[in-house]
Formats: sequence, structure tokens, C-alpha cells
Amino acid sequence: MNVLNSIKRPTLLLDRRKCLNNIEKMVKKAADHGLRFRPHFKTHQSVEIGRWFNDLGVRSITVSSLSMAEYFARAGWQDITVAFPVNVREMDAINRLAGRIQLNLLVESSQVTDFLAAKLNSKVNLFIKIDTGLHRTGLEPAATDEVDRILDVVQKSPLLSFSGFLTHSGHTYRAKSVAEIKDIHTDAVRQLSALKEKYRARFPHLIVSIGDTPSCSLVDDFSSVDEIRPGNFVFYDVMQWQLGSCTLDQVAVALACPVVAKHEQRGELVLYGGAIHLSKERLILQDGRICYGVMVELKEDGWEIPSKIQPLTGLSQEHGILNVDKESMQKIAVGDLVGILPVHSCLTAHLMKGYLTFDGQTIDHLNARTNFLQT
Amino acid sequence: MNVLNSIKRPTLLLDRRKCLNNIEKMVKKAADHGLRFRPHFKTHQSVEIGRWFNDLGVRSITVSSLSMAEYFARAGWQDITVAFPVNVREMDAINRLAGRIQLNLLVESSQVTDFLAAKLNSKVNLFIKIDTGLHRTGLEPAATDEVDRILDVVQKSPLLSFSGFLTHSGHTYRAKSVAEIKDIHTDAVRQLSALKEKYRARFPHLIVSIGDTPSCSLVDDFSSVDEIRPGNFVFYDVMQWQLGSCTLDQVAVALACPVVAKHEQRGELVLYGGAIHLSKERLILQDGRICYGVMVELKEDGWEIPSKIQPLTGLSQEHGILNVDKESMQKIAVGDLVGILPVHSCLTAHLMKGYLTFDGQTIDHLNARTNFLQT
Repeated sequence: MNVLNSIKRPTLLLDRRKCLNNIEKMVKKAADHGLRFRPHFKTHQSVEIGRWFNDLGVRSITVSSLSMAEYFARAGWQDITVAFPVNVREMDAINRLAGRIQLNLLVESSQVTDFLAAKLNSKVNLFIKIDTGLHRTGLEPAATDEVDRILDVVQKSPLLSFSGFLTHSGHTYRAKSVAEIKDIHTDAVRQLSALKEKYRARFPHLIVSIGDTPSCSLVDDFSSVDEIRPGNFVFYDVMQWQLGSCTLDQVAVALACPVVAKHEQRGELVLYGGAIHLSKERLILQDGRICYGVMVELKEDGWEIPSKIQPLTGLSQEHGILNVDKESMQKIAVGDLVGILPVHSCLTAHLMKGYLTFDGQTIDHLNARTNFLQT
Repeated sequence: MNVLNSIKRPTLLLDRRKCLNNIEKMVKKAADHGLRFRPHFKTHQSVEIGRWFNDLGVRSITVSSLSMAEYFARAGWQDITVAFPVNVREMDAINRLAGRIQLNLLVESSQVTDFLAAKLNSKVNLFIKIDTGLHRTGLEPAATDEVDRILDVVQKSPLLSFSGFLTHSGHTYRAKSVAEIKDIHTDAVRQLSALKEKYRARFPHLIVSIGDTPSCSLVDDFSSVDEIRPGNFVFYDVMQWQLGSCTLDQVAVALACPVVAKHEQRGELVLYGGAIHLSKERLILQDGRICYGVMVELKEDGWEIPSKIQPLTGLSQEHGILNVDKESMQKIAVGDLVGILPVHSCLTAHLMKGYLTFDGQTIDHLNARTNFLQT
């Protein structure tokens, strides 16, 4: 069968083989380094793709919201870390989940820890979020006074148990080279190791958990790290390619977009495929052009990557403007489909709410099921 | 009632009074200038909000996709323009709609017009899309050879009828001043007037249709324009405020976001509210800061706009980083809700898939109902 013939509107294609390769590679890397693998499922948000991890022995996962935790708990996952600071307005959802699964939460203040200790009905594990340089969330490693206050609350609570220190070194996304990514990783590990040393006498089982896809893809020295939580690697994307975390050939999703107009003089194709399909995530290519995605040639069983980067340089709500070379301009007709590798696959998958494989399987995404006021 | 108490997660609040004022003002402006008002519904994508327009006498609308046209046709709208180049892969949907309502389509090539003439089962009206300077889609005004070819196909087809020339002067969004927006508008109208003059002998009923919210908000000279199709004005947003199209007080939607952490030294609040809620649309403030949204203080029956702009300067998948002044930092606690006026309300509404009013009404959005593979 040729699934492309059935496509009328922007559709997110998933290359199952590439995706499975990405998963297998990271499972193996974690095993080779003796690390617990707790993949972040916020990228795919799919019960079916979750099953592919489970088939390879993965039993613990990370998510970025309680809604996502509930979705995967319903699918049978029993050990879930919500890698987002506890939102005290969602105490009901926390208690619902904590009663059913091993729920691991993140705190960065004694105030929220106090709140949890007072409101919990069931046991949860707590990580303290450490800011190793991203400066988004977390305590600075030197803020051990607040760490101590949090740990005092934890030790007094029968329902709280301390798991360890967790970071997301998302500043690797701003790195200009692979060497810089490795330096950021080394620096983060150094900071977390110091904390581990300081607190391991009191909490012998505490672990250190790190998370970002660039580090987990590129680094081979994990020293005192116990757990890794990368997520994006399941699909990768153009941003990861630009960072050096993957090749373009490893990117496992492409948005199929109908061509609706050609502007030969400007070297532009107008695509049905815009901000509500790809997201407005963008990057600047080496040649200075803005890029909202990169063109691939769709085939019956996958896609081919042209030798020259042909970027999506403009994006409105529903339109994309694709910069193509003369050869592509001649070859591609109005009504054809082109593939676009997304700049940020997590956001594209969220917007598209599902996937289509080349053997015609439709694959679920949490966002196809959630209403806007779910509680 | 205080709806804020029921909010646990990012929720899109709609100030009904502001929204109705925006609608009434534009309805009146169109009437005052003798223009047909065909509002673009891609911003709100809501049957309920569509009803508010209908209550004020609006009977013709614009949408940006056939899915959206089907949604509003089901709700009773009988005269719909799809302001997007015809996608030949959706011929089935075009024929389904053309059999039920007055469907108005856009073409910019004789090739696609030929295709329509060959495949249509029912009558449709055709607009020729003219590129008045945005350079996204459309024929250049000088390309009258192609216009003539399109019109020849139209005149030979019993199912095609020529409506006129349509443009979207979206380059007003790049304008640096209100004066520049007015210049762009004047220039667009001049180009379309010339086309109208040239073809009115052959097509006495042809009209000129323009569309962007900045022009429609700011301009008072519409001369040879027959129809306006603004959309964003229904909510406005921070981008329109920056352009000068509206005041911040006219913005009718705000994302309610729980505060999950405070970083006093950096002057930052961490919000539950990220790229999957607001979109990654951004702009640069006059002081050079990146802005993904602007804070407002939520009250029981609406919101107040602080005297100083306090922008969202960082945005991840679920997190937002809000830059606040000392006063806000002292006043706002973890667990509180803050409101964020979006940079681009169309994209935020699409992501949030619905609205909550201050009297507790939940309002629908098309995206809450569509599956990812609907045909």
C-alpha cells in the first residue's frame, strides 16, 4: 500500500524503523553505562509508542504534566516521574495518582514540600530540582540551606520519601558546538556529584537524575549519574541535528504537506502546513536563513533527504513557504506532497495529535483525547 | 461565582464584554463605510462566538481551511469563503460543501482553475488571489495574462463564477508604525482598484476584498474596497497592540496560569503555561526583551493591566518564565493564578481548544472536536 495516496491534509508521518532504532540505541546506551533509563514521554505522548519502550524492558518513565501521568497510568505504567514543579492547584490529581502508582514528584521549595506533607493521602517520592545552569527552575547547588529545610520536612512526613537530585541541563540547547554540550554536561554532573557526596550519608539510596537529549546522545562519561531521562531522541528533529545530537537521517517524523502553489521566480512552494501543524519553533541556519523545517522527498515506504537543505522560511497559521532549488521546483507539482522534518518534534506531535506509519497504522497521541477543561 | 477558584491548569479566559465590543465596533465600521463584512473565523474557531456575530446581522464569513468551513456549515453558516489556495487533494470536501452552501474559493493559477472546472459537481464562486506585497501567495497585479487565462476557464465553466480580487496585506504585520500600515493599505487598494477598473466591463459585479486586522482597525479610507475580512480583531493580542491596532485593554483573551515557583533574585516567576498553551509566537519589546505574552492581574470578573509591561521572556513545552517587578514579586505567591495576554491569540486559541468566561460558561473551539486523520 502507499499511504501517501490517502493523505489530503497535513499529516504527521512516522518512520517506525527510525523510531525503533532511536529507542534501541538509547536503551542500549543506558544499559552499557549501568544507568536507569527513565525516558521522557512528553515528546511522543503515545500509549502505542510507549509500548515499544516497554517491549525493550523499560518500566519507568518521565512525563511533564499530571494529565500525561494519568494517561500513561491508565495504560499500565506503574512508575512515573512528573518532571515539572509541583502545581499545588492539582492536589486532587496528585492524590488520585499517588494512590495507584509509584509517583515521583519534583520540588524546589520547602513551602511546597510543606504543602505536600499536609495534603497527601498516599506515598510519593520526591526529587529536589537543581538548577545546573539553565536558570529556568530549580535550586542553585549552593542553596543547601533550602535543601536541608526540604529534607527536614521529608523526614518528618510518613508519606514523603527522598529520591535524590534531578536536573535538566537544557542550556545544552544553546550550545554552539558538541564540545560545549559536553562541557555543560560535565559541569552539571560535577555539581550534582557534590550534592550526592554531601547527602549520601543521610540518604544512602539517593540518586542523581539528568535529562536532556543532547547530553544523553553525545556524552559517554556519566560518572556519578544514576538515571537518564531524555525524551526528544525518540524522534529527534532539525534542532537536534543542528546541535549535533543526531543526523538528519535519524529524524523519525515528517509532516506530509500538500503543495498548493508554486512561485518559480521566488523559488518558493506554498504548502498546506503552517503554525497550527508544525509550531512556530524556528532556528537560524548557517547561511542565515530562518528555518521552520527542512524538506524531504516522500516515498512509498519512507523519505529521502535531498543533498541540499531546503528550508521552510515562512509560516502562517495554515501556510508554509518552502525555499527550493531549481531541480525541486521543476520536479514538484501543485497537488504533490512534500515532507517537512520539524524543528521541534515535541511541539509538532502535540499539534498534530497523532501519527500515520507507512504501513497505514494510525498511532494515538494524548492530545487527541483531552478536552480543554479536564480536571 | 469566582471561576478562578475552579482553575487547576492553564485555561483560556474570555472576557465576553471586550469580545462583544470588538465585534460591535468592526460591524459598525463596515456598515459606516458601506462595506460587506465577512469576518475571518480562524481566530476564534467557535460556533458560539460565531453566533455573537450572527446576532449582529453578519451572514457571510471567512475561514482558512475546508475543515473549518465544514464545521461552520454544520452550524448553519451558508456563505463561506475559504481564504486559502485551493488544495486539489481535498476535492471531495469541496464538492460536499459546494452542494450545501455558497462556497467561495481562492485560486492563483489557471492550472488549478482547470482542475476545479473538471472536477466540480456544484457551483462555486472564485476569487483570484492577488499579491499586493506580502509575497506569500497570489498573482502579482501585473500578471494579467494569467488572470485572463483563469477568467477564460471560469467563463467556459457552468459551475464557476468569478467574484473578484482578494488580497491579504499581511505585510502590515511587519510595519514599524501606524503610518506605514496606512501606506501599505493605500498601496494595496491602489493595485486592486486598477484591476477592478480593468475587468469591471467584463464582470460588472466583481468585488475587491481585503483582509488584515491592522488595516481594518486603523484605516478610514476604503475607497474602492467592497468587502473586509479581518479576523484577529475579535480577540486582538499583544502583537496587534505593538502594531498600534488596539489598546492592551481591548485584548479579550488571557491565559490563566498557575504560579509554580518564584525566583526572587532573578525577578522571575515560573508558570504552568508553555509553548503547548500559548504557542511560540514571540515579539521583541521596545526595551529589547523577548516577549511571549504580557502579564495581567486576574480578578473575579476580568483582569487589570499593570502600568508596567511584565513579559513572559521564556517558554518551554509546559513552562513559562515571567519577568516581574518587585511589587508583583511580593504580591504573587506560589499557587496563585496570573493572566497572560497572548502574543498571537489565533494560535493560543487553537492550542487551548476552548474558552472559559467569567460567568463560568465553557465555549467550544473546532480543535477540541477534530481528530488528526479526519477526512
